[in-house]
Amino acid sequence: MDKKGILIVVSGFSGSGKGTLMKALMKKYPENYALSISATTRQPREGETDGKEYFFISKEEFEKMIANSELIEYAKYVENYYGTPRDYVERQLESGKDVILEIEIQGALKVKKAFPDTLLLFITPPTAQELRSRLVGRGTETLDVIESRMDRACEEAEGMDQYDYLIVNDDLDTCVEEVHQIIRGEHHRSTRNTGFMEKIKEDLNSLKGEK
Amino acid sequence: MDKKGILIVVSGFSGSGKGTLMKALMKKYPENYALSISATTRQPREGETDGKEYFFISKEEFEKMIANSELIEYAKYVENYYGTPRDYVERQLESGKDVILEIEIQGALKVKKAFPDTLLLFITPPTAQELRSRLVGRGTETLDVIESRMDRACEEAEGMDQYDYLIVNDDLDTCVEEVHQIIRGEHHRSTRNTGFMEKIKEDLNSLKGEK
Repeated sequence: MDKKGILIVVSGFSGSGKGTLMKALMKKYPENYALSISATTRQPREGETDGKEYFFISKEEFEKMIANSELIEYAKYVENYYGTPRDYVERQLESGKDVILEIEIQGALKVKKAFPDTLLLFITPPTAQELRSRLVGRGTETLDVIESRMDRACEEAEGMDQYDYLIVNDDLDTCVEEVHQIIRGEHHRSTRNTGFMEKIKEDLNSLKGEK
Repeated sequence: MDKKGILIVVSGFSGSGKGTLMKALMKKYPENYALSISATTRQPREGETDGKEYFFISKEEFEKMIANSELIEYAKYVENYYGTPRDYVERQLESGKDVILEIEIQGALKVKKAFPDTLLLFITPPTAQELRSRLVGRGTETLDVIESRMDRACEEAEGMDQYDYLIVNDDLDTCVEEVHQIIRGEHHRSTRNTGFMEKIKEDLNSLKGEK
């Protein structure tokens, strides 16, 4: 089979637990996956380390990366840039690792357009009721914030069917296995193995000639 | 997630070991899969039992099934009909089991046309050389038969890219796991979960209204 890694975008509702899920996946299968680290121009928050949560760079550096096409996708939120450095992703893919980007739907669709082989995964709680209780359950947010998150969830839900796969995050371990299963399976897609198919066709034809 | 079973067509080169593979899959995961049994008008061979290898029926019965649209697909080889009875397949799918049809490419494409959700799997040896040695290795065939199988393999190879997934049958146990993984993963396809998506969208919208 063809050995190149798959570029994977993971999105999901706020409250879907996708961050925890990705950490658990990386921990269980470190040989298989690499988590892409975004670059940003925002200031590091307490406890954040450069090169771990984000690459913290200046606005000038970021704009230079844009100009040099060194980002797979980027966006600006509230005066700050966020983007995915191309170099790291391409090196990991070439080495056969699957690279996971944890980004939102707008970014996801941009990546899919630029790289049509990208696999889009969407993480969802089992029900809308469960999503709401998770948002409420944190106990740290005002009702206004919860309602605004519910509004956002409604918008995010509209984009769900643009994703290739849905994964219900009910139990963490089950969910890690499901995501892993989906990705392992995708490696067998015939569209991802055109090299293998061409080779076997060629070899069959030349063996046919031999007596 | 939506609970309906998936209709799966498994094809592969003669010598790919797909028969053994399917038996091993059914044995390991009897709860997940049902193997569809074809109907045929040919005579049972020694050791074959009605309802096990095939349903052995008369030409009149077969033609009545065709007339009543009771077959998902059928074909005629050397004066004998072979076909897939619809009733059994639909009952198993409704009960949530994935139904496996082991048929050739022409039949596979007919099934896919009639049921676009059908999953097409193609089993292949790792290399063309390996395929040839397996055909030779049986030691029971003349060189002419081997060459005619190689010709046929060349034709079959042309159809490979119409399949959704390729599975290399090198080691039986690995291959069983890979097929199982691919199918489990497919259950998460967003196109197979439109019911789930509609429900969560609806519920989110009605929860948004509540205070």
